[in-house]
Amino acid sequence: MHTIAQYREAFLEYLNTTIVTKEPKNLYEPITYILNLGGKRLRPVLVLMSAEIFDAPYQKALHAALAIEVFHNFSLVHDDIMDAAPIRRGKATVHEKWDLNTGILSGDAMLINAYQLFENYEGSVFKELAQLFTKTAIQVCEGQQYDVDFESRDDVEIEDYLKMIEYKTAVLVGASLQMGAIVAGASEDCKRSVYEYGRLLGIAFQLQDDYLDAFGDPDTFGKQLGGDIIENKKTFLYLKALENSGKLDANNLEDLYSINPMDAGGKIEAVKTIFEESGAAELTRAEIEKYTNQAFQVLEEIDLPEPKKALLKQFGASLMHREV
Amino acid sequence: MHTIAQYREAFLEYLNTTIVTKEPKNLYEPITYILNLGGKRLRPVLVLMSAEIFDAPYQKALHAALAIEVFHNFSLVHDDIMDAAPIRRGKATVHEKWDLNTGILSGDAMLINAYQLFENYEGSVFKELAQLFTKTAIQVCEGQQYDVDFESRDDVEIEDYLKMIEYKTAVLVGASLQMGAIVAGASEDCKRSVYEYGRLLGIAFQLQDDYLDAFGDPDTFGKQLGGDIIENKKTFLYLKALENSGKLDANNLEDLYSINPMDAGGKIEAVKTIFEESGAAELTRAEIEKYTNQAFQVLEEIDLPEPKKALLKQFGASLMHREV
Repeated sequence: MHTIAQYREAFLEYLNTTIVTKEPKNLYEPITYILNLGGKRLRPVLVLMSAEIFDAPYQKALHAALAIEVFHNFSLVHDDIMDAAPIRRGKATVHEKWDLNTGILSGDAMLINAYQLFENYEGSVFKELAQLFTKTAIQVCEGQQYDVDFESRDDVEIEDYLKMIEYKTAVLVGASLQMGAIVAGASEDCKRSVYEYGRLLGIAFQLQDDYLDAFGDPDTFGKQLGGDIIENKKTFLYLKALENSGKLDANNLEDLYSINPMDAGGKIEAVKTIFEESGAAELTRAEIEKYTNQAFQVLEEIDLPEPKKALLKQFGASLMHREV
Repeated sequence: MHTIAQYREAFLEYLNTTIVTKEPKNLYEPITYILNLGGKRLRPVLVLMSAEIFDAPYQKALHAALAIEVFHNFSLVHDDIMDAAPIRRGKATVHEKWDLNTGILSGDAMLINAYQLFENYEGSVFKELAQLFTKTAIQVCEGQQYDVDFESRDDVEIEDYLKMIEYKTAVLVGASLQMGAIVAGASEDCKRSVYEYGRLLGIAFQLQDDYLDAFGDPDTFGKQLGGDIIENKKTFLYLKALENSGKLDANNLEDLYSINPMDAGGKIEAVKTIFEESGAAELTRAEIEKYTNQAFQVLEEIDLPEPKKALLKQFGASLMHREV
């Protein structure tokens, strides 16, 4: 087995030799640009690790790992347009550095390019990978649509929210792990279980992301604290707080989520107070714990030697402690 | 064998049972909408006809035919955003009827949905179809990028232009015919030839489209006459006219292509006069003839019984006479 750093390095080497700027430059330069903006490369690392855990050389999984990363970056490019986001990883977003049309078209080419990378696998493996990819990609689109819809809906339920983050974020984590297993020719049971592990961990991770947005440590949380509150995002914390507040606090919270003050400091503090006093903060921590434990439970039942289970568990634990 | 009307009807029936509005509605309604705007359904008809010509029941090719049509409509949705086009087939475009974000995301879902339709075929046929589709889809994106680039370039050569229309339009015609052949299990030679027939015919058709934009009959040409001239589009006619004019006329033409008068009538007449007097109109007719003849030549050499060749030829001829 290899370390996460080794997987990442091997992946980046493969990325750099595979994703090159061809003609027409205006189509391919943005693709090279976004793929070289960095990031933790968590999804491709999961593909490689999973392949090796199921007894294939990780090199065999590099194409699938890159397909996942290209797809993830496609979704970032198009989502950044939809969110009118000027900055991604400290650099200008594609539609900002170039223009709207370039963002749309380069994104489209990336989505197609992801499928192209699966062509490195023979017929039945190709089909299995492409089919899982398609199912996942459709869910990611649906998740994004739910996320957009929620902005203008005032009847979002906790259940809707969980489905949204599952589709928008978690299924791609599950698919990454399953792709490694597919490339390695693992059993149907193993493929299903490792997907489920990733899916549950992905939900836990996203819930934690929501939690840390309000209560994280500004020194270690990568993004601006309170960003969700500033943008009036109906996160798990918010929905739980509404559900668990008296009428007065609930109205107060809804009022706070209808304003966009220039200096958001006071709003953020007021919202956080409601999040804590309503018990939403604690309930969110409990929900994160629940999904994390469910994930580890699934892991227990996978037909794998203990040391390999331990590796998957360790990765999950360090992900939840934000160490990878 | 069936008639074009029969293929079209069977295709529409399959489309209507397959493309239904699911949740989230805001993602799927625009897809149902654009796919029901009509159009001649030329590409799916070609898939079905080709399957039957190579001795498979056309029903077997319905999934591939729909994949091609969904892809074609995906490209329309995203291109309409890039062209800021408000109207498509007499109705509001998707981004106009809904909004930009809906246009982007529904388009993305359609591209993925096209791949999903190939899942109806078993492993090796699936791979062959998906691979041809991917190659073609990438070329369509590249063609669209060249088209966008040409707007701001003043060094576009005839050769560049031909490559642009080949990628943007013609390869999808070739791929439609080849997909029918793949589904039918035709020989490699047949698959290659029928693709080539479609590609050459597609180029001839697009050149004719450019020609008719200036010199067509307003009663039968579906679009506004002179549209390319109004938009200063560097078509084959324009590039040939520049190449074949004296300095005075060439400068005159470039000047005409730098203005956007409210009433374009005078500009259109002046440009058409240069197109004719420079010999560009005649040269364009000759080029259309050349590609059409090359297409028919390829057809001659396909290993098919004469009556089946005749059907393909008849379709090509009626396409060029705009009867289908």
